[in-house]
Amino acid sequence: MSDVYDKIMDLAKRRGFIWPTSECYGSVAGFIDYGPLGSMMKRRIENIWRQFYIIQEGYYEIECPTIGQEDIFIASGHVKGFSDKMCQCPACREYLRADHVAEGHNISGASTMSSEDLTRVICTLPCPACGEALGAVEVFNFNLMFETTIGPGSQRKGYLRPETAQGMVTDFARLLRFYRDKLPFGAVQIGKSYRNEISPRQGMIRLREFTQAEAEIFVHPEKKDHPCFERYAAYEMPLFGIDQQVQGGDPVVVTMETAVSQGLVANQYVAYYLALTHQILVTIGVDPEKLRFRQHLPDERAHYAVDCWDAEILSARFGWVETVGIADRTDYDLLAHQRQSGERFVVFLPYETPRKERQVRVSPNMGALGPRFRGKAKAVADALCRHVPGPEGVTIDLDGEEVFISPDLYGVKEMVVEIPGEEITPHVIEPSYGIDRMIYAVLEHSYDEEIVEDEERRVLRLSPAVAPVQVAVFPLLARDGLCEIAVSVSDAIKNEGLLVEYDDSGAIGRRYRRQDEIGTPFAVTVDYDTKEDSTVTLRDRDSMGQVRIPIRELPATVRSLVEGKVVFSDL
Amino acid sequence: MSDVYDKIMDLAKRRGFIWPTSECYGSVAGFIDYGPLGSMMKRRIENIWRQFYIIQEGYYEIECPTIGQEDIFIASGHVKGFSDKMCQCPACREYLRADHVAEGHNISGASTMSSEDLTRVICTLPCPACGEALGAVEVFNFNLMFETTIGPGSQRKGYLRPETAQGMVTDFARLLRFYRDKLPFGAVQIGKSYRNEISPRQGMIRLREFTQAEAEIFVHPEKKDHPCFERYAAYEMPLFGIDQQVQGGDPVVVTMETAVSQGLVANQYVAYYLALTHQILVTIGVDPEKLRFRQHLPDERAHYAVDCWDAEILSARFGWVETVGIADRTDYDLLAHQRQSGERFVVFLPYETPRKERQVRVSPNMGALGPRFRGKAKAVADALCRHVPGPEGVTIDLDGEEVFISPDLYGVKEMVVEIPGEEITPHVIEPSYGIDRMIYAVLEHSYDEEIVEDEERRVLRLSPAVAPVQVAVFPLLARDGLCEIAVSVSDAIKNEGLLVEYDDSGAIGRRYRRQDEIGTPFAVTVDYDTKEDSTVTLRDRDSMGQVRIPIRELPATVRSLVEGKVVFSDL
Repeated sequence: MSDVYDKIMDLAKRRGFIWPTSECYGSVAGFIDYGPLGSMMKRRIENIWRQFYIIQEGYYEIECPTIGQEDIFIASGHVKGFSDKMCQCPACREYLRADHVAEGHNISGASTMSSEDLTRVICTLPCPACGEALGAVEVFNFNLMFETTIGPGSQRKGYLRPETAQGMVTDFARLLRFYRDKLPFGAVQIGKSYRNEISPRQGMIRLREFTQAEAEIFVHPEKKDHPCFERYAAYEMPLFGIDQQVQGGDPVVVTMETAVSQGLVANQYVAYYLALTHQILVTIGVDPEKLRFRQHLPDERAHYAVDCWDAEILSARFGWVETVGIADRTDYDLLAHQRQSGERFVVFLPYETPRKERQVRVSPNMGALGPRFRGKAKAVADALCRHVPGPEGVTIDLDGEEVFISPDLYGVKEMVVEIPGEEITPHVIEPSYGIDRMIYAVLEHSYDEEIVEDEERRVLRLSPAVAPVQVAVFPLLARDGLCEIAVSVSDAIKNEGLLVEYDDSGAIGRRYRRQDEIGTPFAVTVDYDTKEDSTVTLRDRDSMGQVRIPIRELPATVRSLVEGKVVFSDL
Repeated sequence: MSDVYDKIMDLAKRRGFIWPTSECYGSVAGFIDYGPLGSMMKRRIENIWRQFYIIQEGYYEIECPTIGQEDIFIASGHVKGFSDKMCQCPACREYLRADHVAEGHNISGASTMSSEDLTRVICTLPCPACGEALGAVEVFNFNLMFETTIGPGSQRKGYLRPETAQGMVTDFARLLRFYRDKLPFGAVQIGKSYRNEISPRQGMIRLREFTQAEAEIFVHPEKKDHPCFERYAAYEMPLFGIDQQVQGGDPVVVTMETAVSQGLVANQYVAYYLALTHQILVTIGVDPEKLRFRQHLPDERAHYAVDCWDAEILSARFGWVETVGIADRTDYDLLAHQRQSGERFVVFLPYETPRKERQVRVSPNMGALGPRFRGKAKAVADALCRHVPGPEGVTIDLDGEEVFISPDLYGVKEMVVEIPGEEITPHVIEPSYGIDRMIYAVLEHSYDEEIVEDEERRVLRLSPAVAPVQVAVFPLLARDGLCEIAVSVSDAIKNEGLLVEYDDSGAIGRRYRRQDEIGTPFAVTVDYDTKEDSTVTLRDRDSMGQVRIPIRELPATVRSLVEGKVVFSDL
């Protein structure tokens, strides 16, 4: 099966985007290295993400350790529930995902079967590795967290976090204070997360160590209108809701305004981040024609979530790949950590004006109760306060005996108290991005081949915003002083803060092709005319169009092109 | 012991720089969270580092997994040698660093003692935790790598990397191709590293999970002159060489040129990165008066290293803290991985013109040897080729028997061969930075207190290049339309790409103090005059000086101030 995936991964390896990790020892499935260009592109994509979440939204970034103590993941449910159904072939000892074995034989519902049912179903099937019948196989849960020990002597169990999100939740109290006790507020994190996959075989799509960018936005449970909803109200994009999926229809293209008012999306907050996510993905270079937002069906949605959507990206090899999740998780996470830790995860919200509330207070007449009940007087008084008796006396239970307390033994006062505010547990809106999958999608969607002058031209049509090298500078030939001019042109462009690659080796055609392959959007060539009139050739990667530009205008022009303020065809 | 450390950590917690991690479960020693401001400052410092290593030096960044397979760390020596001497108190079961116990009783040389010697030395000492005599204690090696398992069924051991450096070394072959097979080249990495410390008690100075920024620069073993040495030749800084240390002297302030020519520093490459490191540290705000470079003494230097220096930063609490290491590690790492993996870690360097070499070739006369030696003819021929005999015949050893071979049985030809180049194993220059320690040093060195109008003013005198919030914008009062103007001023400054904090709550004095405490270098106040003449007050954090500036000039002025192109006193 040689498809665009193989071509991209071949290019990615050759050119320094993605490498197998520690290759000299036989690389390990589920791990990759980002080479020089891949790492640069990854950083550019992360910074675009930050531009949206930190600058536009105003949510600060925090950075928590990747190793967490056990309590965190007991509370989050990962210790108990973060597992896959696994089995080992009795013949060849290969470890297998049991549900995948069943699905490989078109057995439906495998992903939700119990271990017992799966064992029964697969025991008659052949092992996909060795072909022997699985026979006496046994299916069990395998927890996907990497486990380790903190400190010596197995003192303390630690896990590599399966998501960055828990950091924002456990830091809730500190964050709340940082944001001066007001809702809504949010915090984000970009960092490594880990899943000890049983047998990952999908390259960058299923990694054991991957990068997430997650935001946790804490909102008032009854105020899910986004304060800046206007920004995306008219934003249109394809939504693949539950109804469309159940009825076998297609995604519908609607504005966020309509999506919320028709109840397709649960609330403005969710709709806002659906649109923002669409905008980010298109900005980094995902093909909008290969992008849809699919709502979780009731049986795949977590029980506590109000609404949940996946941004899915179409890949030639992998089909629709879940790349971003956006969920309204309600108060689930905060309550879970509150239970586990004993701390209170609440916000005190003062009322605009304190509310007045009538309260009834009982004051036992101790002077009379004392002589009458002696050692039990205190118990009687407590019982009275619990009962809040009326003016006609009350019967209380005193050590199993019913005793009537006449109204002269207590007073009852009605009073008005001021309630300054209330404590509420915020809800959490969580957009969660898989950075590695985004990078793969950008590579796949930007890969192109065409025939130019009888030769195949491979080109990554990367947006200038994410292309690792932004400008290439070539002397036409490596002589006659052309190199010196080209180096100084290159330095001048570097001074604009752009990443420039200078290259003077080999035929000019080959140098262009190399830059095409790594997605460099613009190339500058210094030639003999340059020595006459101080102009250079500026070439556009996609159209291969060329224009002549004076050297003194070049740095600013190139910068405007890279920043998208000018398009090449306008030059 | 309440010193500046306590004050800084208090401020850092309150204001959102550094937080104990997962505090609600009782934080774990050796782990910290970077809060909103700390994380922002960390990113600024990392980006300054990138500015030097990626933009100035031209070394690309790569990103390798934090989990590595065992072979990597067998080769690097960490599996065998990366350990501390540990013991457990027989009475209270506390785990202790055995060498620290000994050092606590002024026993010298503890750090280099064997486990047996340490056991003997400390068994008469009291446990520092419970006070009981350690008695039947046993000292053993505790490996400091966090261990985990990759995949199910304990299939494969994995370690959390103790340094980022190994990634650049195992990727050597790929990197070499990326840099088109030419020396020198370099690659860098910024990321998490891990050390499972036995009992870390020094806050940010000794972390179990920390961030490193490392560069591996691969150079020709005989060409250790840096091609851009001119840049730092005249750079002066304090070097605390072996001689000064042994003689009990002070560091000497010298230029890099002198340091190399006098043999104080081994070569230009090492000197270059000493100076570049000094420049980075001063740029981010380390006090140059509290910074020195100390050379490793022969007994602390790794046996394979030619020269090794630590940048040490003076801390009020911790003394001189090793923060950056710069070493010429020769070919140690590449040879170690070559041995372990069986791959060749070499560079083929073509000669400018192929060298001609005289070679002697022996051609056994098989037609004559065959009949004479039969089954042993091949062995005789091989022996002849090994011996390269002269024209008078030769005596060879044939299965333990001496046999004379007369010259008619072979021919000898002298010929000239062309040798196109040679394979060499590069040497590695490794600058290695502890980012967390750098951040702590910047916080400590920038912390200041002064009395202003009878009140204590706490101020972080952070460089504008690393201050998390770059500008604060206040309306004098939250009424009369001042807020609206202030918000639009704030937006205009944001458009310059700066991080602005808008604050309209509380007294203006308190707002200034809050920004002083988090190190915001500049604050803008919108007041009633603003409504008349469209000017605002710009205040400088350090001098508390104020100037009036027209709103239309403000964004560009503030940007120039933050970028250090203008100083406040010139306004």
